[in-house]
Amino acid sequence: MNPDNIEIVLVHTTHSGNIGGVARAMKNMGLSRLTLVAPLEYPAPEATWRAASALDVLEAARVVDTLDEAIAHCQFVVGTSARDRRIPWPLQDARGCAERIASQSVRERVAILFGREDRGLLNEELQRCNLHCHIPTHEAYPSLNLAMAVQIVTYELRMMALADKVGLPEDADWDTPFSSSEDMARFYEHLEATLVEIGFLNPEAPRQLMPRLNRLFNRVRLDEMELNILRGILTEAQKAARRHPD
Amino acid sequence: MNPDNIEIVLVHTTHSGNIGGVARAMKNMGLSRLTLVAPLEYPAPEATWRAASALDVLEAARVVDTLDEAIAHCQFVVGTSARDRRIPWPLQDARGCAERIASQSVRERVAILFGREDRGLLNEELQRCNLHCHIPTHEAYPSLNLAMAVQIVTYELRMMALADKVGLPEDADWDTPFSSSEDMARFYEHLEATLVEIGFLNPEAPRQLMPRLNRLFNRVRLDEMELNILRGILTEAQKAARRHPD
Repeated sequence: MNPDNIEIVLVHTTHSGNIGGVARAMKNMGLSRLTLVAPLEYPAPEATWRAASALDVLEAARVVDTLDEAIAHCQFVVGTSARDRRIPWPLQDARGCAERIASQSVRERVAILFGREDRGLLNEELQRCNLHCHIPTHEAYPSLNLAMAVQIVTYELRMMALADKVGLPEDADWDTPFSSSEDMARFYEHLEATLVEIGFLNPEAPRQLMPRLNRLFNRVRLDEMELNILRGILTEAQKAARRHPD
Repeated sequence: MNPDNIEIVLVHTTHSGNIGGVARAMKNMGLSRLTLVAPLEYPAPEATWRAASALDVLEAARVVDTLDEAIAHCQFVVGTSARDRRIPWPLQDARGCAERIASQSVRERVAILFGREDRGLLNEELQRCNLHCHIPTHEAYPSLNLAMAVQIVTYELRMMALADKVGLPEDADWDTPFSSSEDMARFYEHLEATLVEIGFLNPEAPRQLMPRLNRLFNRVRLDEMELNILRGILTEAQKAARRHPD
């Protein structure tokens, strides 16, 4: 496991106190890379106060406007989620996720996304993920405080770091680097545009087509060469569609 | 595991917000029995606010003046501790403790003690415990927020409850109930008084004698019959000492 390759990403946090709590939770467990996507109020005295002796983590936090910016350079993205999804996504509990994250972080940049206090991550944000993480709370009161959720996931990572028993992932010795989240986002745009152009996808009635394709390619993870090949195919399909418009 | 037999005991909590955070952390993980030993400020609006939808746990909390009162009826007591002790005590990490607690809770009352925000549990409080619990934080910033510590331990208990793979403890089918903490406290008083009377313990220079005896009997756990036998022996020794004063 490489802690420097693991980033905690807070998406649209409402209560600034939670941001401080997260910084402390991270440092307690040996992590330091924090990214804030459009926090409602930041910097804020409440964040500073709750961070206690983790002020260095807070001060080094990256603040960005969009999730795209936050995860552009990451090759493995995990989203924490309480809700059941319409389309099932690769899903593991916090312990299983920690093992995957520890393992991927040896060679790649990993982002772990935590959503809004009231609504969590939106569907379109969850679809950016390779893996969903579930913390098995009790059904009588399933909604965890944001900083608590971060504490549990980072604690599991710390247990992994200490156990030092994490094997490399099965694709650790790949011949080509895996695509970044930014490249994948461009690919999905290209894919969707192409499917519309060739008449396969009706933008007025998209159904669940794009989410399902999203899930497919996020699950398998494309390496850079595979991505280039697919994009070449899309470009050719577009050319064909333009040569023979309906 | 029986959640109704597991009690979270907060000893001399300073920040009332943490009490609310603990109530929520507990309910999130399916626990509901909370005891507060002489909290600095309680009830308090900050506690209510942080408890969110765990107000029922907060309102049902027992408030007592002393640790003795809090754990009098418990047969198994676990103390969370960050520091190294002068005398090593039976110690496990949060995962190992959760397994022990889950297992003991099937038949017995278990208390888990969490100390002050600034200093944790005092030595004399830790000596009341059968087992010490260590949360393996990072050395750069080992000091966990109180509610976070409760969250981690209760999360591990929740994982145990879900795994449902916890065997009964090796002494589950004992023929006699194990002694309560209150009875053990009386026993230690009796033991200490006797050791002084027979001239084995010098109250002016007690060294580490009582802590070591404490550790011994807490580790083995005395059943009620064994306790009666030992107390009978102490009484006889006292009588002898009184018959033949030096």
